[in-house]
Amino acid sequence: MIIQLQPGISARDREALMDQVNKVGYKITQVKTQAGEYLIGIGKGEFDIRSIGHLNGIQDIHIVSDDYKLVSKKWKVKPTSIDLGDGVSIKDGDMAVIAGPCSIESEEQIQHTIAHLKSNRINLMRGGVFKPRSSPYSFRGMGMEGLKLWYKHAKAAGIKIVTEVMQVSQIEEMHDYVDVFQVGARNTQNFNLLDELGKIDKAVMIKRGISGTIEELLQSAEYVFSGGNEKLILCERGIRTYEKASRNTLDLNAVPILKTKSHLPVVVDPSHGIGIRDYVAQMALAGVMAGADGVIYEAHEDPDNAYSDGQQTLNFAQSALLADQIRKTFAMRKTFPLL
Amino acid sequence: MIIQLQPGISARDREALMDQVNKVGYKITQVKTQAGEYLIGIGKGEFDIRSIGHLNGIQDIHIVSDDYKLVSKKWKVKPTSIDLGDGVSIKDGDMAVIAGPCSIESEEQIQHTIAHLKSNRINLMRGGVFKPRSSPYSFRGMGMEGLKLWYKHAKAAGIKIVTEVMQVSQIEEMHDYVDVFQVGARNTQNFNLLDELGKIDKAVMIKRGISGTIEELLQSAEYVFSGGNEKLILCERGIRTYEKASRNTLDLNAVPILKTKSHLPVVVDPSHGIGIRDYVAQMALAGVMAGADGVIYEAHEDPDNAYSDGQQTLNFAQSALLADQIRKTFAMRKTFPLL
Amino acid sequence: MIIQLQPGISARDREALMDQVNKVGYKITQVKTQAGEYLIGIGKGEFDIRSIGHLNGIQDIHIVSDDYKLVSKKWKVKPTSIDLGDGVSIKDGDMAVIAGPCSIESEEQIQHTIAHLKSNRINLMRGGVFKPRSSPYSFRGMGMEGLKLWYKHAKAAGIKIVTEVMQVSQIEEMHDYVDVFQVGARNTQNFNLLDELGKIDKAVMIKRGISGTIEELLQSAEYVFSGGNEKLILCERGIRTYEKASRNTLDLNAVPILKTKSHLPVVVDPSHGIGIRDYVAQMALAGVMAGADGVIYEAHEDPDNAYSDGQQTLNFAQSALLADQIRKTFAMRKTFPLL
Amino acid sequence: MIIQLQPGISARDREALMDQVNKVGYKITQVKTQAGEYLIGIGKGEFDIRSIGHLNGIQDIHIVSDDYKLVSKKWKVKPTSIDLGDGVSIKDGDMAVIAGPCSIESEEQIQHTIAHLKSNRINLMRGGVFKPRSSPYSFRGMGMEGLKLWYKHAKAAGIKIVTEVMQVSQIEEMHDYVDVFQVGARNTQNFNLLDELGKIDKAVMIKRGISGTIEELLQSAEYVFSGGNEKLILCERGIRTYEKASRNTLDLNAVPILKTKSHLPVVVDPSHGIGIRDYVAQMALAGVMAGADGVIYEAHEDPDNAYSDGQQTLNFAQSALLADQIRKTFAMRKTFPLL
Repeated sequence: MIIQLQPGISARDREALMDQVNKVGYKITQVKTQAGEYLIGIGKGEFDIRSIGHLNGIQDIHIVSDDYKLVSKKWKVKPTSIDLGDGVSIKDGDMAVIAGPCSIESEEQIQHTIAHLKSNRINLMRGGVFKPRSSPYSFRGMGMEGLKLWYKHAKAAGIKIVTEVMQVSQIEEMHDYVDVFQVGARNTQNFNLLDELGKIDKAVMIKRGISGTIEELLQSAEYVFSGGNEKLILCERGIRTYEKASRNTLDLNAVPILKTKSHLPVVVDPSHGIGIRDYVAQMALAGVMAGADGVIYEAHEDPDNAYSDGQQTLNFAQSALLADQIRKTFAMRKTFPLL
Repeated sequence: MIIQLQPGISARDREALMDQVNKVGYKITQVKTQAGEYLIGIGKGEFDIRSIGHLNGIQDIHIVSDDYKLVSKKWKVKPTSIDLGDGVSIKDGDMAVIAGPCSIESEEQIQHTIAHLKSNRINLMRGGVFKPRSSPYSFRGMGMEGLKLWYKHAKAAGIKIVTEVMQVSQIEEMHDYVDVFQVGARNTQNFNLLDELGKIDKAVMIKRGISGTIEELLQSAEYVFSGGNEKLILCERGIRTYEKASRNTLDLNAVPILKTKSHLPVVVDPSHGIGIRDYVAQMALAGVMAGADGVIYEAHEDPDNAYSDGQQTLNFAQSALLADQIRKTFAMRKTFPLL
Repeated sequence: MIIQLQPGISARDREALMDQVNKVGYKITQVKTQAGEYLIGIGKGEFDIRSIGHLNGIQDIHIVSDDYKLVSKKWKVKPTSIDLGDGVSIKDGDMAVIAGPCSIESEEQIQHTIAHLKSNRINLMRGGVFKPRSSPYSFRGMGMEGLKLWYKHAKAAGIKIVTEVMQVSQIEEMHDYVDVFQVGARNTQNFNLLDELGKIDKAVMIKRGISGTIEELLQSAEYVFSGGNEKLILCERGIRTYEKASRNTLDLNAVPILKTKSHLPVVVDPSHGIGIRDYVAQMALAGVMAGADGVIYEAHEDPDNAYSDGQQTLNFAQSALLADQIRKTFAMRKTFPLL
Repeated sequence: MIIQLQPGISARDREALMDQVNKVGYKITQVKTQAGEYLIGIGKGEFDIRSIGHLNGIQDIHIVSDDYKLVSKKWKVKPTSIDLGDGVSIKDGDMAVIAGPCSIESEEQIQHTIAHLKSNRINLMRGGVFKPRSSPYSFRGMGMEGLKLWYKHAKAAGIKIVTEVMQVSQIEEMHDYVDVFQVGARNTQNFNLLDELGKIDKAVMIKRGISGTIEELLQSAEYVFSGGNEKLILCERGIRTYEKASRNTLDLNAVPILKTKSHLPVVVDPSHGIGIRDYVAQMALAGVMAGADGVIYEAHEDPDNAYSDGQQTLNFAQSALLADQIRKTFAMRKTFPLL
């Protein structure tokens, strides 16, 4: 059960409420986010919701039987809009385009990428400064130095920064330079990281695990939300299957399912989802038609010489074309009833 | 290696040609289809293609290193068009819409479905008369009686029949009533069935196996083609993965990959691909954007009372809306360069 | 519900019984096997089993809620023993060793293999005469000619023949030469084949599908049983997963699960299960400890020159060693309580 | 390439060596562990190994083409033995039994468990004090308080502690109380955690990822080794597949493959591998026959009332029986040649 508390609820009313929840045999977790205060009750027994609902201090009360509660649409029907400032947002009813290299490589690369984005009205830039690599001997990213360089130019251009955070200790040092913290597919169930991201007031985009279920993605989001941060974005990026003709199997089924189960915006990553440059555009547009609220893809001035992921990265001409096609496809989708 | 023979090649030239292929150490399979004659050479050694290419009677010669040869685009760059007569075809550059119930249930159902299709300019109807069921105690279809009823009404209406054949012995009895024989996902590697379908002059649509690879689907098509039948259509219908929030995982990655590897048309089945009625339309349109040449979906006058698959079947109002959206989405896709 | 009828039940009693089953809203399938007669009732409603149980002509009546009924241990607690004659059987409490080549290649190969088996007290020989191959250009087996040669020598040596049947039309021609018909992993859900195998009085070993579930394997067995043939063996042979370091993922979990759910004997195929010769012995012995009633593995006089599957085939020295280790491991397992 | 340096190599020789490695175009990572010093060279070009091999200060030099180097058996043929003190070790040629509850719950539980282990000659105890849970509302473990209680009793009893570490910040506080740090399946690719575990002088057991490949498990071990810690154990604990009749699919194929590819000891976890109490013993013994150097399983005085994982936990009577059967099975395996 989710009880959304009235702002400024008195200590006495809160106590009476908690007593009553305990009395029906439910364990309480108190949640305080940027947007409000909640009591989450976990239990199994049946009870008459009116026995709680009549008490003082309740703004809203809902029974949510899913294992995830706060991210469920059963409780919050209205879609969550992630406002990043300067008129940039990621939300239902709109189409966010997020592009940029796999890795931040140099100041020049940053500048050229930003110029490309600006000239194509793209205001969200992706890029890695801390890179998870399966081999310890691979390039692991430019680190904070790269992030600060990036921030300098992005800030000036009004471009928002989307980048991966790999561990708890990085959150604080990265905080002021990042607009959207990305949790990578290998960290979707790094619960300590999720806990800590619950304590900050920045947007968090959670990628689905390498072989994570839709349910697990929602539970990972629940960690951050129940930790205190409602600014969440979900990302479908392909799952691991037996099929090896593509890098991953982009599971676009997840898009309408996530949009139905949760009020959070859903973004699709076709670059990792198929892993082959020539097919990224088709899968991006397929993602738009499946109902995504945004697309995140890899773009680089010279993909064949990118430090990482070159085989799935678009060049700037391809990226310009795709951004335009994404917008046209989305514009058409908006005219379709019942989707 | 594929050698396409000139029509009317002399017995002497043919023999000289086969001698030379044997001489470079390749094993020959002779293939004769509706459209031409071929020698398929299988072997490993390197040789100078000119040592064969200068001989008489060759229309075209290609080295194809894939395990599938005749269905490969490396040999036949021009897409294959499946002409079903009466102006109905399934082909690259066009958008086939195939709709109808999971199972043929009654004459009335056939008539109502056909009326629905006609009024929405859909001229391909799907339906099962022989049903593969995991339990021996489930409804197994109306059989030949259903097919004949269906044929009577479809013929009159100018509607083409797409239906599953489950075993060799059915091919002959079904032959005159069927326009497209469908090979189901459980039979994709029923090699005897594929062999026999190679001997007829009707279109065959092969569904990807329950957990079949893209490569295996192409090899199954190779069976039919090398058996003598070039009229082939490939169908992506979702694969089995660990994710249980949907019936299958629709692998739209397969669409651009199949279109690149093969000259055969590719159709997407969103009904089986996601298995949940409310999301069929999104996945159908995603399939169009991924590059499909056609969409096959389940539609029924009263899905909740369908004999099978009701949970993933559209009603006629939803079907009408979707057919229109498929066409609009395809029309837009055709305006996009480089897709 | 399963009703086992008394032998010689009168027509009148049978009718009364069927009336009563229909009256509680259950649909009846009549099953007659080598061992008895059954009525299978399929339905959903609750009813008092005594309202049927008191009628005449019932030997046994059970409620079985699984989708499979006749192969369930809920109905038949006593394990099924498959008696192949000449003192050879496959059954719970015993350890069947089945060895031989992937493909039957020549009379000499047959003779040498039989000599190897005899000298190691192995009385079940595997081998393929009809081979399912993903490519139409691969060797497809020696066919009936090979089977007849094999039969001649096996019969003389008292060795039983285990071989794959790929299609309905082969059953009749193969019938007199085969002791155990094997249904291959690509045909586990070839329902027509299963139906026909239900009509014969020979043992049938069903391999789990390429990516078949345990439940589907049991339902496939249900097809054969409900068709009239109780002589069934289940075989775990590895499933398709994302892991490519082995050919398949041998799912030994399936062994104790199948043994608990069904009264049928369970055999393990380590050759296909791992696909790498050096590890076949370990996986065979692991299968024994997991609770298998038999092991089927590939052995060849000269694996490196076998027509097929050489990479996973043991030579005769390895096979001799393994057969001995299987027996010792099984002998120890029998001394372990509670397994 | 791996160059093992002579102890006490001079600064000048080291420099000459590094110059030469750079000269053949290889990038160097310097590794210093408890046991020695290494230069890892990563590159692609061909070169004559003698051009480096003749230099001073080299103890051993090997070309290793795998992506993992230091954990590869191509370099270090002799199996690694993990000595935990007090005569307890985990190593090839021996059989480690590790048992205990999923979660540490109370001092009483610790004492009873230790008594059970002692009376069955088990000297390694598992248990979680920091629990990764998919839902933020589940019990997350007793934390450091539980670990200290456990340490007090285990130390007194001569029992070694195996427990999961979830994040970097826990390593230091847990360090003195832990004998084997376990990296859980959700953290197998938490590269920061692996990096930090490379800096300590305690054994680390890495579980295979939820859907991790064998290759990825070895690369994760390479992280720890190249960070400076050679005391590594690999653990197969089941992978995620489409099959839902068991919690995971225990991939025993991984055991002989890992033993061949790496010099590190391999342990099997049947509790998570199948997830059903009644089958844990069979799968444990199957793991022994597959070649494991140890078994880790869950045992609890009262499994039905355990805080977590009760459905896959043995009671003490079952645990006693299993420990004995593991030892007998291992004793028999040792008598088998060629395994």
